[in-house]
Amino acid sequence: MNKNILKQRLGIIGGGQLGKMMLQASSTWSISTVVLDPDSSCPASAFCDELIVAGFQDEKGLESIAKKSDVLTCEFEHISTEGLKNLERKGYIVYPRAESLKIIQNKYDQKKFLKEKGLPVGTFLSVNNSDQLHQIGEELGYPYMLKTATEAYDGKGNQLVSSFEQAPEAYEFLSKRSDIVYAEAFIDFDREISVLCCRGKDGKTVTYPVAENIHKNSILYETLAPARITNSQESEAKEVAVKISGVFDAVGIFCVEMFIDKKGSILINEVAPRPHNSGHFTIEACETSQFENHVRAVLGLPLGSTRQRSPVVMRNLLGTPDHAGIPVIVGAEKALSIEGFHLHYYGKEQTRPHRKMGHFTVLADTLESAIEKADLGEVCLRIVSESSKGKE
Amino acid sequence: MNKNILKQRLGIIGGGQLGKMMLQASSTWSISTVVLDPDSSCPASAFCDELIVAGFQDEKGLESIAKKSDVLTCEFEHISTEGLKNLERKGYIVYPRAESLKIIQNKYDQKKFLKEKGLPVGTFLSVNNSDQLHQIGEELGYPYMLKTATEAYDGKGNQLVSSFEQAPEAYEFLSKRSDIVYAEAFIDFDREISVLCCRGKDGKTVTYPVAENIHKNSILYETLAPARITNSQESEAKEVAVKISGVFDAVGIFCVEMFIDKKGSILINEVAPRPHNSGHFTIEACETSQFENHVRAVLGLPLGSTRQRSPVVMRNLLGTPDHAGIPVIVGAEKALSIEGFHLHYYGKEQTRPHRKMGHFTVLADTLESAIEKADLGEVCLRIVSESSKGKE
Repeated sequence: MNKNILKQRLGIIGGGQLGKMMLQASSTWSISTVVLDPDSSCPASAFCDELIVAGFQDEKGLESIAKKSDVLTCEFEHISTEGLKNLERKGYIVYPRAESLKIIQNKYDQKKFLKEKGLPVGTFLSVNNSDQLHQIGEELGYPYMLKTATEAYDGKGNQLVSSFEQAPEAYEFLSKRSDIVYAEAFIDFDREISVLCCRGKDGKTVTYPVAENIHKNSILYETLAPARITNSQESEAKEVAVKISGVFDAVGIFCVEMFIDKKGSILINEVAPRPHNSGHFTIEACETSQFENHVRAVLGLPLGSTRQRSPVVMRNLLGTPDHAGIPVIVGAEKALSIEGFHLHYYGKEQTRPHRKMGHFTVLADTLESAIEKADLGEVCLRIVSESSKGKE
Repeated sequence: MNKNILKQRLGIIGGGQLGKMMLQASSTWSISTVVLDPDSSCPASAFCDELIVAGFQDEKGLESIAKKSDVLTCEFEHISTEGLKNLERKGYIVYPRAESLKIIQNKYDQKKFLKEKGLPVGTFLSVNNSDQLHQIGEELGYPYMLKTATEAYDGKGNQLVSSFEQAPEAYEFLSKRSDIVYAEAFIDFDREISVLCCRGKDGKTVTYPVAENIHKNSILYETLAPARITNSQESEAKEVAVKISGVFDAVGIFCVEMFIDKKGSILINEVAPRPHNSGHFTIEACETSQFENHVRAVLGLPLGSTRQRSPVVMRNLLGTPDHAGIPVIVGAEKALSIEGFHLHYYGKEQTRPHRKMGHFTVLADTLESAIEKADLGEVCLRIVSESSKGKE
C-alpha cells in the first residue's frame, strides 16, 4: 500500500510570509512540515514542525531538508539551482523543477524561453557591451528599458532609458549589479494583470480569476479581482497562463504577470513558479486559496475549485519610511471594524522602509465598494518601529 | 501608551482541535500563543509558540499559563474553576469567566441559572434519592430523562426512563458516574439547532446564522446552515443566544444548543462558553469564522461580520469502530476532488472508535446540493488504524 497521501512530509524552502501561508493551508490537514530559512525567527518558524537554519545557496542545507521531506517546494526563486539539480539527480522530488527555476531566475533566459515556445512577450535584445547601445536605441526606439537579468525584484535592476544620452550611464549602473543586462521595448500598458494557474501531477490545471495589479514605486500596491478587462482578454490571459504552466511541466502554482497594452494585446511581463503576492486575494475570496492548491498539487492531491465568491481588493502593508526596528502595527482595531476587512500581519521581527509586513483583503458586494473600504482601512493602518512611536 | 493590541499573548487552555483552530485564526495576525494541555502531542502543539504540559485541574499549571499570557481562554469547560477563580483574584484575565464556567460545568446549575434569568428551558427537577423517583415520574410523565449534572458529554450521563420500573436502575447507574443526578421532561423535538453568539469586551454582540444539528448516537453527526426553520424561529433563537451571552457577561463565543419542539417552541438544551463543533461551518461559509471572532473578542478587537456566503453542510469524521491506534485517513484524495469539499484533519496521534478525528465542510449553491456532495464525501472517507489497514 502506498504511503498515505496526507502522511507525506512537506519541505518548504523559504520561511517568509509565503511559506507561512503555505503552512497555514497545510495545517488544516495536519501535514508534517519542515522549512529551510537563514533566519531562525522567520514568519514560518512558529508554524512548521521543524526549521533548518541555512542559506538558500547552501547545498548541505538543501540536502538536509530534502532528506527530511517527501516533496520539496519553495516560496521564492533565488535558490541554488545546482543544489536543487543535485537533489533531483539523487531522486528527491522538487516542485517547481530545478530547470524551471534556473530559466526563471534569469529574466533574459526566461523571456527567450517563452518566446521560443510561441508565447507573447515584448521585443527584447541582449546587451553585451556599451557599443551596442546606439543600435539598441535605433531598434527599440525611446524610451526603452534596460534591465538586469538577475538580482532583480521589486523594480530593482530596471532603468528607463529616455534618450541615447542616458543609455551609457544606465548601462554602467546596471552592469555593476549583474553580469547580464538586456534591453526591452517600453510597454505603454493600459493595465497590469496576473493569472495564477495551478497544475497537478497529472497535468490537470485550474486557473484563478484574472487579477488586476497596481504597482507604486515598482512594489505591488493593490490587487483587484475581478480585473477590469474584457471577457476575451480574461480568456486569453488564462490560456497564456495554462500554456506557460505546460511548457514548464509545472506542478503547483505558477503566477504569470502580464501587461495589456494600449491596443488591448497581452504581453507577458514575468513568471513566478510559486504562490504570489498578487494571489493573496484568493485566501478569503476564492473557494480554495492559492496556497491550498499549491500544497494540493505538490502532494499529488486533486486541485480545488478556484471559484471566486466575492469581489475583492488586496493591498500590501509596507513598513513606513523612516521607521526601522521592532515593528508595531498602528490602527488595527479601527481597520478590523470595517465590514469585510481581513488583516494579515506576517510577524516579521524587524520593520524597514517599504518592507512587506502584512497585507489586507477587503470583500464587498462590488469592487467599487471594496475599494472604498480598502481606502478607509489604508488610512488607519501604519507599520512603525517601536522606538519611533513617540514621533507618531 | 497601551500595549499594542496585536502584541498581547493569548493563552489557550486545551490543545485539541478547537484550540488548534483558534491558533489557525490567531496565526494570521502572528499573535503570540501559549497552550496548556496534558498531552504533549495534542493537535495544537504544532502551532503554538509554547506548550505547557499540565492537567486541567492542575492549579500550578494554570498559574503558569496565566503568567505567560495577557489573556486566557479555553477550548472546553472541564477546568478547575477554583484554579481559575484564584487566577482572577490575582488579576489575570480569563474569558469565559470562572464563575460562568462553574455554572455551566454543572448542568443542573446551568438550567437553574437560565430559568432564573427567564430563559426558555424545559421542566427539570432535582433528584436527591431514589425515593423521589415515583413523584418525578408523576410530575414529568414517561418517558423522561435522567441525567448527571457533571461528567456528561456526547450523550454520556444520560438515561431515558420509559417507565417507573426502569427508574431505579437508571438512577443507580448514573449515581455512580456523578454525585448530582437530575430529571428532565422528555422533549419530543422537531429539530435541534444551535446559535453562536460572540460578545466583545464592550458588550457588543454578533450572532451567526442559526445552524441545524443532527446527532447520531448522541454525537454530533451533521450541521446544516441555514437551519430549515422559520424566520421567526431564527430571530427568536438569536435573541435567546444574545440574552444568554448577556446574563453570563460573556467575552468570546457562546454556543447555545436548542430544541424546537413539535409546537415550534424553542427550548434551551445546553450552553458552551466557547467555539463549538456545530460552528465549524463558519470557517469556510462565513465572512469571519467562530474562531477568529472568539480571538477578536478575548483580545478586545472589534468583532467581524458573520455573514454567510454559501449554504453549507459540516460532518464530523469519527474514528471507525474496531479501529484503535495510529490513524490513517482513507479516501482523502477522492473526497478532495468533490467541488466545494473542505477537509479538516486534526492530526491526533491515536484513533479510537467514534473519536472526533476531523470534519469536512461542503459549500454549494443550495443546501440540497451540499448534502448530496457531503454524502459522496462521506462514502469515500474513513479513519482507520494503521495496524488494521490490511483488514480494509
